[in-house]
Amino acid sequence: MSCVFCAIVADEAPAIRIWEDDDYLAVLDIRPFTRGHTLVIPKRHTVDLTDTPAETVAQMTAIGQRIAKAARTSGLHADGNNIAINDGKAAFQTVFHIHLHVVPRRDGDKFSFAKGMLLRRDPDREETGRILREALARIDVAEKD
Amino acid sequence: MSCVFCAIVADEAPAIRIWEDDDYLAVLDIRPFTRGHTLVIPKRHTVDLTDTPAETVAQMTAIGQRIAKAARTSGLHADGNNIAINDGKAAFQTVFHIHLHVVPRRDGDKFSFAKGMLLRRDPDREETGRILREALARIDVAEKD
Repeated sequence: MSCVFCAIVADEAPAIRIWEDDDYLAVLDIRPFTRGHTLVIPKRHTVDLTDTPAETVAQMTAIGQRIAKAARTSGLHADGNNIAINDGKAAFQTVFHIHLHVVPRRDGDKFSFAKGMLLRRDPDREETGRILREALARIDVAEKD
Repeated sequence: MSCVFCAIVADEAPAIRIWEDDDYLAVLDIRPFTRGHTLVIPKRHTVDLTDTPAETVAQMTAIGQRIAKAARTSGLHADGNNIAINDGKAAFQTVFHIHLHVVPRRDGDKFSFAKGMLLRRDPDREETGRILREALARIDVAEKD
């Protein structure tokens, strides 16, 4: 399988899964800018904004919003988030299966954010995954009440 | 009116309008990273991802996708686009009325992109607006056929 995200969706490549339904998967970025940097990936392969249905782009972003909220209410203590879609190689897209980035941010983290862009590692990815999954589960429960 | 985006929506502050419907407005960023840098703004005031309805976040992004496609097919000759929502002050949000950025990119523009982040000016905003409006109108016509 030549697409790494299709391999992750098919469970043929490892990833720390944060959230999943029939059509979308959210996993930790293996080279995070900040702790909790998550990718929302539609399971059906498309490349970028030119070939992805509007409904998929909309749904990806709504899921990203839930993860952004989870990051704020989680043990990651995010004070905000950058949400981004890099559409095309010219825009720094590196995996050509469309995806949305959620990058949790903390007040005054400019220096560590810049450092994270260079280092791009999380010393405890399993724990980060657990923290985000739990916060998302709490949001799900709250919305059902 | 204390919110500059509410003032633009109410036509009490100037802006170069790219696209508009009953609920959303797209205008050129007055301090663009690149030529054609556009903001998609819901007309109803909310602050960030914590208080904006999921449907609004989804719809904003779908409109951003149309503008991204227009930038590629327009006389701006974009090869890609960065789509971004800065959710909170910690994530570099500066206007606290939620908005989505569409930043058209061209192959090999890394240097001019970096320069644009510092200079943030467009010498011919009226022409840029006209180019994007025309490309969006062509996409609208194509989708109706």
